[in-house]
Parts: sequence; C-alpha cells; structure tokens
Amino acid sequence: MIVISERINGLFTSVMRAIDSKDEKFIQDLAVSQVEAGAGILDINTGPGVDNAPEIMTWLVKTVQDAVDVQLSIDTPKMDAMEAGVKAANKKVLINSTTAEADKMGVLFPMAAEHGSDIICLTLDEKGIPNDANSRCELAMVMVAQAMELGIDTTRIYLDPLVLPVGAAQDQGPKVLEALSMFKAIADPAPKSVVGLSNVSNNTKERSLLNRAYLAMLMANGLDSAIMDPNDGELMAIVKASEVLLNKKLYADDFLRA
Amino acid sequence: MIVISERINGLFTSVMRAIDSKDEKFIQDLAVSQVEAGAGILDINTGPGVDNAPEIMTWLVKTVQDAVDVQLSIDTPKMDAMEAGVKAANKKVLINSTTAEADKMGVLFPMAAEHGSDIICLTLDEKGIPNDANSRCELAMVMVAQAMELGIDTTRIYLDPLVLPVGAAQDQGPKVLEALSMFKAIADPAPKSVVGLSNVSNNTKERSLLNRAYLAMLMANGLDSAIMDPNDGELMAIVKASEVLLNKKLYADDFLRA
Repeated sequence: MIVISERINGLFTSVMRAIDSKDEKFIQDLAVSQVEAGAGILDINTGPGVDNAPEIMTWLVKTVQDAVDVQLSIDTPKMDAMEAGVKAANKKVLINSTTAEADKMGVLFPMAAEHGSDIICLTLDEKGIPNDANSRCELAMVMVAQAMELGIDTTRIYLDPLVLPVGAAQDQGPKVLEALSMFKAIADPAPKSVVGLSNVSNNTKERSLLNRAYLAMLMANGLDSAIMDPNDGELMAIVKASEVLLNKKLYADDFLRA
Repeated sequence: MIVISERINGLFTSVMRAIDSKDEKFIQDLAVSQVEAGAGILDINTGPGVDNAPEIMTWLVKTVQDAVDVQLSIDTPKMDAMEAGVKAANKKVLINSTTAEADKMGVLFPMAAEHGSDIICLTLDEKGIPNDANSRCELAMVMVAQAMELGIDTTRIYLDPLVLPVGAAQDQGPKVLEALSMFKAIADPAPKSVVGLSNVSNNTKERSLLNRAYLAMLMANGLDSAIMDPNDGELMAIVKASEVLLNKKLYADDFLRA
C-alpha cells in the first residue's frame, strides 16, 4: 500500500510558521523524515486562508523536491494554486482532488490529461456525499468515464469513498468498506483507491486505535493508498502486518524492519 | 462478535497442574476472569495425552459451570470425552469440533442433534485442508447439508475456515478472508463463523500485532466468533473498535469501557 504523508500542511502550526518565514530547512527535514518513515507520496497543502496560495504552493513544491525524490500530491481547493503546483513539480503529480461536480471535473481532468498527472476523485457531487456504496460507485463511474474520454488511464485514477467520522456517521463505516471492494470492478485495468484515514476517528477519544482497526479493514477490502501519518509507528506497523497477512509483501521474521 | 476463551486448556502448564491436583478454585478463578474480560463462551480442553479424558472433562465442565453462567465449548478429539462433556453440561454446549471426515460427522452431528448442541465445523476432510476459498466452501456445504438432514438449525453451525500460520502458509491469509465472506451465502438463515485466531501468528516474533490486524480483517469479512484470549487487552480493544466501526455496536466516547 502507498502511504501518502499528510504532514506538509499549513494546518499544522509549525508548518504554517515555516511557510511564513520561508524556512526551507524545516520543510525539507519534515519531508525527509516522512520519506524515511515509509511515505511513497508526499501531500502538499498550503493550509487554509492564505492570500497568495499559488506562490506558496510553488515554493513548497520546489522546496520539497529539492530534498526528496518522491511523487507529490498537490492538495488545494484553489484552481490557480493547483495549476501552480502541477507546473512547479519536476515529475508527474497526484492532483488532490476533483469531485463529480461538473465545474471541478471540467478543469481538473483536462489539467491531469495535459500534464500526465494522477488524480484523486472524491465520490461526492453537488448533492453532497452519498449515503450508500452503490451511490458512491455511481459517482465513481461518472468520474472514471469522464477521465477516460480525455485519455486518462484508469490506473491513474485514485477513487476516494470518503471515510467519515464514526462518532457522527457510524452507519457509513461498513458502507465505505463495501464501496471500496466494488471500485475494482468499475474499469479494466482497475482504478486505484485512496482514503483520508484519520477522518474516521475525528472527535473521538481513541484516535489511534480506531485508525489502526479501520486501516486493516480497508486494506482487506483492497485499499491501494492512504493519506496518513507515516511517523505514527503503530499505524505503520499495521500497514506492514496487513501487507504480509494479505500476501502482498513476503513474510520474514523481521517484516516490521524490512 | 462472540469471544470464545481459549485459556482453560491443559496445554497451559498452570491449568494442567490444577487439573492434576483437582484445584477447583484455580479453574473457577480463571473462568470468572475470562467472563469478566468479555468471553461469551468458554472453551474447555483437557489438554493432550491424558488417560482419563472423559473423567477430567466431566470434572472441568462441572467445576466451571459452578462458577460462571456462560455457554461452554467442549474441545477434544476424543469421542468419549466429548460425550462426557456434553452430558455434564447443564446447558447446551458448543461441540468443538467436527470436520468433513465421514467418521467424525457420523458421530458428532447425531450427538449435536440429540443434545441440541451448537457445533464447530472445520473445513477439512480426509485429504487435508483445502488450498482455496471455493474448496473450503464446498466442504462447508457438505457439513451444512449433513447437519440439516438431522434437523440441526443452520444458525447452530459455526463454520471454521482454518486460519494458518502466516509464516508457513502465507498465501492462505487472503483465501481464508475470502472463504469467510462466502460462508454467509451457504444457507438461509446463515451459518455462523469462527476462527482459532492465534494460529495466524504461530512461530512469528510479532504475535500480538499480527493477531490484532488479522482480527480486524476477519471481522470486516463477517466473522461471528473467535477462539482467543479475552485477557489480552489490546486484542479486546480491537474487537470493540471493530464492532463500532462495522456499526454492530453503538458508538459512544467510552466504547472501550462499555
């Protein structure tokens, strides 16, 4: 499974400060620590409410890619900041993210097609987040079809079934698992899948436990990647154990350190 | 999910000593601690190599049921000890276990029918343990059909897909998950399912981690019960978290203590 690190995000106070003071070393040390901890992709998010998001995104992308050689996920709701991030990157990025809303698909799929980017597709539209697995799959199919029309290979699409907080939308837990297991049948070759894992435990007292249990379940249902914290050692242990249990990585006595 | 406690087993040295010295208090304290920790069923196993297994099983059953009021699982390969345990119990037991071998089914299904017992059915036969999910289901169907002929309700059948050690049979991990998800379709009402969880981590260095990750995966695939240690607090936390995440138990902030 691909771990997409969530830590380079202006939402975190320390990162916001580093952005404000253009502290390259702080950002680069953070990037290196996450790649060393097992991140395969780094999510790059300027944080909310910045006036000059395109400039900040450009600086963040250039700063990170000077330090590490992994794919970057450009994470912003602003189209101008997205385009700036995609152009600043020296390799193909992961666009994070479109939805099935027409205005987003109309901009982001052409952008992905032009730059050869991968793209995260959230299964929601103008009416909000669907209530069941079938409706999530319908939205997934809309997005996959529109992407394919532009020549975007289905393996470049990361479908996100939208994990919701167990305390607020408990009935959605098994429905997300069900949707995930259905995504693989939507196209051939199968699209990939992704979740924002920690949403499941928002506003709970047992965040680590709930994240770990749900991640194992998601992986058993075919999850390909997760936006999560690779510096969470207990969570990374579950990733490694699950890969071994699902026969995706070869078992060795020291599989945790492999 | 029903936790079937595995600790009253003569394989454990302390239990063997208590059996040898007919130490009722030791056995009863153990039984009480397991029920208090969350066991819904107590597995009772005399241990290997005892000469007078029927007498020991009778003593164990009577000793345990004097202390706790839960269902007992009579766990022995010896037919005379099984019959002694079933008869000594003051409520319906869980027979642990038959296989699809004709000689076992021929004795144990009539015994279950006569005494109204539940029964664990291991998906193996004279040829051994099947290599894939479909073959496990075929054996499950053979056992369910034979039990139904004797009037045993399908909800009294606990199908066991046979969890194998990840270090020795790694390819079987996902196949067991697949078999489990198929078992529910074998009969209506659906049979139950059970696993001997700790088999997955036999001879590994990371027993607790592997048990926890695999249990979450098994529960996501519909597992109804597991033979495991209810005094393993981290494992029980995964049980409770998974029940909440699968929407089987109502979420509360203090769900771990509920």
